[in-house]
Amino acid sequence: MKSFVCKGDICYSKDKTSLETIKDGYLVCENGVSAGVFSEVPMAYQNLPLLDFTGKLIFPGFIDLHVHAPQYRFRGLGMDLELLEWLDTHTFPEEAKYADKEYAKENYQKFVWEMRRSPNTRACVFGTIHRESTEILMELLAESGLGAFVGKVNMNRNSPDSLREESAEASAAETVRWIQEVSGKYERVKLILTPRFLPSCTDVLLRKLGEIQKEYHLPVQSHLSENRSEVAWVQELFPNSSCYGNAYDSFGLFGGENCATIMAHCVLSGEEEIALMKKRNVFIAHCPESNTNLASGVAPIRRYLQEGMSVGLGSDVAGGTKCSLFFAMAEAVRASKLRWRLQDDSLAPLTIPEVFYMATKGGGAFFGKMGSFEKGYVFDACVLDDRAYGKQAEFTISQRLERAVYLSQDGDIIHKFVDGIQLF
Amino acid sequence: MKSFVCKGDICYSKDKTSLETIKDGYLVCENGVSAGVFSEVPMAYQNLPLLDFTGKLIFPGFIDLHVHAPQYRFRGLGMDLELLEWLDTHTFPEEAKYADKEYAKENYQKFVWEMRRSPNTRACVFGTIHRESTEILMELLAESGLGAFVGKVNMNRNSPDSLREESAEASAAETVRWIQEVSGKYERVKLILTPRFLPSCTDVLLRKLGEIQKEYHLPVQSHLSENRSEVAWVQELFPNSSCYGNAYDSFGLFGGENCATIMAHCVLSGEEEIALMKKRNVFIAHCPESNTNLASGVAPIRRYLQEGMSVGLGSDVAGGTKCSLFFAMAEAVRASKLRWRLQDDSLAPLTIPEVFYMATKGGGAFFGKMGSFEKGYVFDACVLDDRAYGKQAEFTISQRLERAVYLSQDGDIIHKFVDGIQLF
Repeated sequence: MKSFVCKGDICYSKDKTSLETIKDGYLVCENGVSAGVFSEVPMAYQNLPLLDFTGKLIFPGFIDLHVHAPQYRFRGLGMDLELLEWLDTHTFPEEAKYADKEYAKENYQKFVWEMRRSPNTRACVFGTIHRESTEILMELLAESGLGAFVGKVNMNRNSPDSLREESAEASAAETVRWIQEVSGKYERVKLILTPRFLPSCTDVLLRKLGEIQKEYHLPVQSHLSENRSEVAWVQELFPNSSCYGNAYDSFGLFGGENCATIMAHCVLSGEEEIALMKKRNVFIAHCPESNTNLASGVAPIRRYLQEGMSVGLGSDVAGGTKCSLFFAMAEAVRASKLRWRLQDDSLAPLTIPEVFYMATKGGGAFFGKMGSFEKGYVFDACVLDDRAYGKQAEFTISQRLERAVYLSQDGDIIHKFVDGIQLF
Repeated sequence: MKSFVCKGDICYSKDKTSLETIKDGYLVCENGVSAGVFSEVPMAYQNLPLLDFTGKLIFPGFIDLHVHAPQYRFRGLGMDLELLEWLDTHTFPEEAKYADKEYAKENYQKFVWEMRRSPNTRACVFGTIHRESTEILMELLAESGLGAFVGKVNMNRNSPDSLREESAEASAAETVRWIQEVSGKYERVKLILTPRFLPSCTDVLLRKLGEIQKEYHLPVQSHLSENRSEVAWVQELFPNSSCYGNAYDSFGLFGGENCATIMAHCVLSGEEEIALMKKRNVFIAHCPESNTNLASGVAPIRRYLQEGMSVGLGSDVAGGTKCSLFFAMAEAVRASKLRWRLQDDSLAPLTIPEVFYMATKGGGAFFGKMGSFEKGYVFDACVLDDRAYGKQAEFTISQRLERAVYLSQDGDIIHKFVDGIQLF
């Protein structure tokens, strides 16, 4: 059943500053695509089945632009460390375990369950360097009905033996094999090239990944200008690059027409890097909780929005502790307030409509026409029961959405649709 | 049954830097007071009933040093405003409704239910200016079995007619009537003098409250140096006071031997104020979530700890959105990281043992020997089922506690004891 009408209290974004809301509205799904939102069911759709979610909030599924599936198991741990120390102490030893396919299957299943019950419907996901385990992750995501870009990670230097590919050649060959095995296999789970970050990849490997990108036209995801010590290290490793983004760019891995790219964090990007991201339409995955937890700082998101750049939200589990982008929205607002108060009062704090836009249509643009209920958008939707937060009648839909941002918990999503298919 | 033994994975603080943990340990309650924590049940207690919480975390109930019960209904709303605007737009109109005792009863009941299921066992609570509604709140808290200091709020200027007492005399008289009616009525619910903050009280009222304090030896709670515009306003209103704290002090409402005092926030306290707080042993209720939500800034808590000052945590609902002090602990760590990164790198971020100490023994000291399992401490305890966060065997007790700070949700507390009485 991919054509139906949902009734409820609907909210969605058309643009980044306003929020569209309609009480007891009707949202029409026609062959898996939104036909729009109406105050009464239009004649043409009156014969479609009606799903009555009266009194519940209906909003587009969230798009998590940056999450590490193998880090889910130890989320909430080691938050007393900064990035590089945290990688060495917790992350790399854990990711090394994903050489074991059974371990991978057991733990990836938990991540997928968590994402499935969360308000997120799509995500850009890092696996590990292990091809087969990454394929298991993709299989599990496909079975769940969720949508995702998933990356087999490339790493051939500066990590323990147990989590380092033998050579640039081996890493590239394994990546090509992965592409050939999985391309086109799933409807909603796609491949994305995933060099971990510049310190993990030699120049030779990055050059090969650039060639693979050109040949297979894959999108790219990685990390950019997250933490001070990381940025300083990249400067040492790439002395001829004028900035972190320029180094990616020199290998053909930094956006542009045929190379859709997401860069996570962008906390410390300078003017040149910002101009290059803008020119190449690089998507920024803002991960506020992670940037606070790892004491990286706060990205100048208001600036990026003002520049008209493409910005979405990332949970960045396990730099972040929670998959739900509701929490990323709350943390994005909070971090922007402290940035405004403590660092730079020329950039006003983010608003709820802005962070909701980022979690939906902003990040959704990376996937295509996703993250809105405007006519023609892919029908991804969540239904939230917010009665536990108080008497609905006392609040407007916008206020109920704001309260959901701060108060929602696991399990509050009672129905979910992806591509017009009801998952639960 | 006020004497028994609990078995489980126990953690508690003796001091602010370390965390005591014991796997499969035994915690003895003797007549409502802790007899200590043991690796085996001592001979003297072997005949006591054993409550077997094997595999569960057992820790002292948290003490919320600052929370506004009448603001619970609209928590998570209006977080786009700063303090003074937020008070005028949301808080004062809501608190005015508590003139209606039925409204008060219905909504205070919800607050008390929430606190009851949370990991908090004790709290310092603001009511409203309404004596009878405040008495209802105290009655409900007493029925719940929780412990609290509760204040009828004093306000006789700078608020709407609907939430302002007629005169200093009327406010003082109502306060005395409240004291006479409720003093000694409940075992665990006590009175605390509660001038809202300096802008809400005239000099005459403050002088009268100082006299009442002296006569009845009540403790005091209020707000201090929270937000820039508020601090500037206080300077205008009290031109002869050298600082915000000094103004309270001039009325005898700022700590000292016979005037136990909690001041919430202390974000912007200067050297003189800090010295005075220290001299008078004023308790600092650190409310990190609220200070971020209302864009006030981040209090220099590491400094206060280094100075040996008394510091606890406050949820400050509804400047904060969640009653659970687990969330206040997480936000305290996060805020301290951004303060370190963005404002002042001489004060290192707070650690989990430090924020746990603040939520337990640190704030507990205001109530007496509370917030620890050391011998002689009042037996307030929570039992938490953390199996939903992952496989317990893979983590130490300290790590499980850290993960609870970030991952716990409503309903994770499965048993709770106050004064040795099991509430559930």
